[in-house]
Amino acid sequence: MSASLPTDLEIAHAATLRPLVDVGSDLGLTEDQLEPWGRDVAKIDLAVLDEPDAGHRAKYVVVTAITPTPLGEGKTTTSVGLAQALGRLDKRAVVALRQPSMGPTFGIKGGAAGGGYSQVVPMERLNLHLTGDFHAVTAAHNLLSAMIDNHLHHGNKLGIDVRNITWRRVLDVNDRALRTVIVGIGAREDGLVRQTGFDITAASEVMVLLTLATSLEDLRLRLGRIVVAYTVEGKSVTADDLQAAGAMSVILRDALKPNLLQTLEGGPAIIHCGPFGNIATGTSSVIADLVGVRGSDYVITEAGFGADMGAERFFNVKCRVSGLVPDAAVLVATVRALKAHSGRWVIKPGKPLPEGLLAESPDDVRSGLPNLRKHIEIIQRFGIAPVVAINAFPTDFDSEHAVIQQLCDELGVRCAVTTHVADGGAGALELARVVTEAAEEPNDFRFLYPLEMPLTEKIETVAREVYGADGIDVSPSAAKALAEYERLGFGTLPVVIAKTHLSISSSPSLKGAPTGWRLPVREVRAAVGAGYVYAICGDMRTMPGLPKSPNAERIDLTEDGSIVGLS
Amino acid sequence: MSASLPTDLEIAHAATLRPLVDVGSDLGLTEDQLEPWGRDVAKIDLAVLDEPDAGHRAKYVVVTAITPTPLGEGKTTTSVGLAQALGRLDKRAVVALRQPSMGPTFGIKGGAAGGGYSQVVPMERLNLHLTGDFHAVTAAHNLLSAMIDNHLHHGNKLGIDVRNITWRRVLDVNDRALRTVIVGIGAREDGLVRQTGFDITAASEVMVLLTLATSLEDLRLRLGRIVVAYTVEGKSVTADDLQAAGAMSVILRDALKPNLLQTLEGGPAIIHCGPFGNIATGTSSVIADLVGVRGSDYVITEAGFGADMGAERFFNVKCRVSGLVPDAAVLVATVRALKAHSGRWVIKPGKPLPEGLLAESPDDVRSGLPNLRKHIEIIQRFGIAPVVAINAFPTDFDSEHAVIQQLCDELGVRCAVTTHVADGGAGALELARVVTEAAEEPNDFRFLYPLEMPLTEKIETVAREVYGADGIDVSPSAAKALAEYERLGFGTLPVVIAKTHLSISSSPSLKGAPTGWRLPVREVRAAVGAGYVYAICGDMRTMPGLPKSPNAERIDLTEDGSIVGLS
Repeated sequence: MSASLPTDLEIAHAATLRPLVDVGSDLGLTEDQLEPWGRDVAKIDLAVLDEPDAGHRAKYVVVTAITPTPLGEGKTTTSVGLAQALGRLDKRAVVALRQPSMGPTFGIKGGAAGGGYSQVVPMERLNLHLTGDFHAVTAAHNLLSAMIDNHLHHGNKLGIDVRNITWRRVLDVNDRALRTVIVGIGAREDGLVRQTGFDITAASEVMVLLTLATSLEDLRLRLGRIVVAYTVEGKSVTADDLQAAGAMSVILRDALKPNLLQTLEGGPAIIHCGPFGNIATGTSSVIADLVGVRGSDYVITEAGFGADMGAERFFNVKCRVSGLVPDAAVLVATVRALKAHSGRWVIKPGKPLPEGLLAESPDDVRSGLPNLRKHIEIIQRFGIAPVVAINAFPTDFDSEHAVIQQLCDELGVRCAVTTHVADGGAGALELARVVTEAAEEPNDFRFLYPLEMPLTEKIETVAREVYGADGIDVSPSAAKALAEYERLGFGTLPVVIAKTHLSISSSPSLKGAPTGWRLPVREVRAAVGAGYVYAICGDMRTMPGLPKSPNAERIDLTEDGSIVGLS
Repeated sequence: MSASLPTDLEIAHAATLRPLVDVGSDLGLTEDQLEPWGRDVAKIDLAVLDEPDAGHRAKYVVVTAITPTPLGEGKTTTSVGLAQALGRLDKRAVVALRQPSMGPTFGIKGGAAGGGYSQVVPMERLNLHLTGDFHAVTAAHNLLSAMIDNHLHHGNKLGIDVRNITWRRVLDVNDRALRTVIVGIGAREDGLVRQTGFDITAASEVMVLLTLATSLEDLRLRLGRIVVAYTVEGKSVTADDLQAAGAMSVILRDALKPNLLQTLEGGPAIIHCGPFGNIATGTSSVIADLVGVRGSDYVITEAGFGADMGAERFFNVKCRVSGLVPDAAVLVATVRALKAHSGRWVIKPGKPLPEGLLAESPDDVRSGLPNLRKHIEIIQRFGIAPVVAINAFPTDFDSEHAVIQQLCDELGVRCAVTTHVADGGAGALELARVVTEAAEEPNDFRFLYPLEMPLTEKIETVAREVYGADGIDVSPSAAKALAEYERLGFGTLPVVIAKTHLSISSSPSLKGAPTGWRLPVREVRAAVGAGYVYAICGDMRTMPGLPKSPNAERIDLTEDGSIVGLS
């Protein structure tokens, strides 16, 4: 962040890694339960979960954020820094994070493994293939796609309505030209001509299904339930109907095992799955957390985007599946994001910050506080104690931090400044101390809605009680689909709202804590295998493109075979 | 093969594996030079190739075959069986094989890791992701594809002729609907509409380039030379022009390291790369063989299809790159294939053998001998001693084997019957003994043509001197492309002839040793990064389809999480 800090890659390269067996042992894992997968990376044998449980359960802490700028406000670095700090306080802490998507690494953003002195290493492995789990998702997803087109080609015995196939294909690459394609062109033996498209692998239902599966058996069952199309009569067609789910589960067998890496300070980091934050849960895996809580004092896990999106889904979807009850929620706030929420500054990705935004202005911060206050309320709505983490930047002023702390004092909410990017775990000690305090308090965790509530009501409940909308406007086609889903038996699934992450509302330009607006439900889709229905409330891009000068142009090997340009 | 033999998967599961460190140590590899990659699989550190060489070089034996039936005649099982037998004779032997393509595993064929008691294990790992090398090829290939379309989208500064883009996309799945697609459909921000298509990953130029690269540096250079398109002025556009090759080499860094597994009898097996046999070299990697020859007495490697295709390319392309000189060539022959070469029987994949073909008939075998004789001559043309391996089936008769042995006696060629599928290495002891004899003899290895020979002449030389054609008929468009390639400086590349593997001629139905025919060169293409020009002489399918009832429908996990149906 500071000009004087080395690059993330330089810091990662300079690190001395602990033997992974020692790292695993901190998590209560024996050498036998670790399958080395290249140097300094291992898969964790799922048999650990079958071992008799001594009843020990770690404190479970989710890291979320205020509504971020397009640059992100540092949830990953805070998660890593917090885990590092807890380690320094002699707590056994593990951080459970998503695996970064490889495609975007070659687009704008470069690597994503934390940053500065709060990173997960080995950084190149994390940002490239890691252990191939994303590739396995791609392969399983596309085998199902091929089996659909093959079924059509060989006579369509199931009577699939060719105009109502919802299953697309995926690739882990930013490739805008694949968003919409026509396949099957050519001769008779080249299949049926039809329009479809590709999403990025992170947006695959298989990815989020893997994230939510609790065991290999559960994975197999969920895969079988994936709905890929509908018949002309409106009957759903599943992966099991196509006899594809067995082969898919075979392809995903190793991918279900979470990956063990380490933080820069040698603590355990479990990296597993990376579902999209907009249309999916945006969380790391249930399995990772289940492994983590058995063998540590603290599991720090991250939920994508702001608390309105990530934390809400974490609570209502992920915790419902895992059965785990969170003990605290860290809410990451930055001075720059709060200044942006004043409405006075616009931050654009790939551009330098506006100079005026960098000037000392507690007033700008104060004007942005309604966003923080709203996110605090969202977390409290679930019965969980929030802890505000001020992710400090070298360009911040004490007066600006003071404004944030003052609000927290008023609200009786714990708050700490953290400098983990520049200082590693040492910079997050105060945060760690208040997190342990919060986590020791009794909590009153509750879901926002019961599963029996009809889908439309669930969506409306999230819109009103989390986002603060006045209501929802359901398009006629969405209303029809919702009725169909109830009829097909999907009505008891939880919901995921796909909306912009740049506002609590559905309009990216509305900053702060917007009121007096209604959520437009344009379209709904069913991720039956993963286990939720999602409502599209805005333009959701599921296949990114590359910028004019993609990062790939600057990534290369040096003469000695090491990597440059990854961050 | 026999009804009483357990399935390949059952045999593989029953095997007790040696610690891989011990297996590696048989190859002269220290524990440090092995990176474990999941249980019983490791990548070999390329640093081994930089160690001072004591001058030791193993005998280098290529396994090829007569013109096969669509079922294949057992080159892989023979390679494994031979290596196992050499181990029993106290030779340090390593088998170097291609990695099977995952896509077809879910189509007709099931697994491909040898068979019976001559297999490479762990069999499931080999047939699924192994260490992700194929996935890395897919990712590197498709990043380049995305960068091409992205370049067009952002203004096409290089002046690429949109009608002359030769680079397609790849996926490791049998998906006929992707053979020809239209991409870029949608709005302005979704790119340019154009027709292109997908090949299977094994058919990617990146795959064969990885196969032929001799070091990380060489890999980087070859990637940069890949020609993806031409400008309207006829200038070639490369991966380096698009600044894509650095990122591609970063994606492929681990994939360049060969993978160590073991045979059922605990000997080392190096599995690396899997380029298509029809349009590419169909060999395992140069790097695998370079590692193998340093640390063993015998390297047994396989070349795809019959000697007319696989061995010719092995000699003219692969050995030219590696600098290795083969010491013997094993020519696998089967009674069933020779009977088919009589022209009296037709063998179809997925169908039972014709009953009449199974009856005792030395005469049918004798009528097929011209095919064997021709392949013997092809190998001798390169100055290498052939050894005929009769891959025995339980349905064979001694009288039928005797006919083959008689021809070999007449020609003064070594010959042995091998029963390695049923008996493992013990069944290939006689073959191992004659192979060691042949390999001890001085040989007179020579390439078929010098690189300075013009491309058209190179193609004609292979056609006449290897295939026995009367000449070649070059289509006007192929002639034009050949002239262009000479102009662009590709004229000194070796050639690969893409033709059917089911006949020495270009007509799959012509059995035996066809004469009086001419090779039609329909089209030529340049794989400049891999380093050859290939001539398309027939219908070449580069994306397979799935059958009506694909094998994927029968592959599944059992309750205890083990895999069924893979073979």
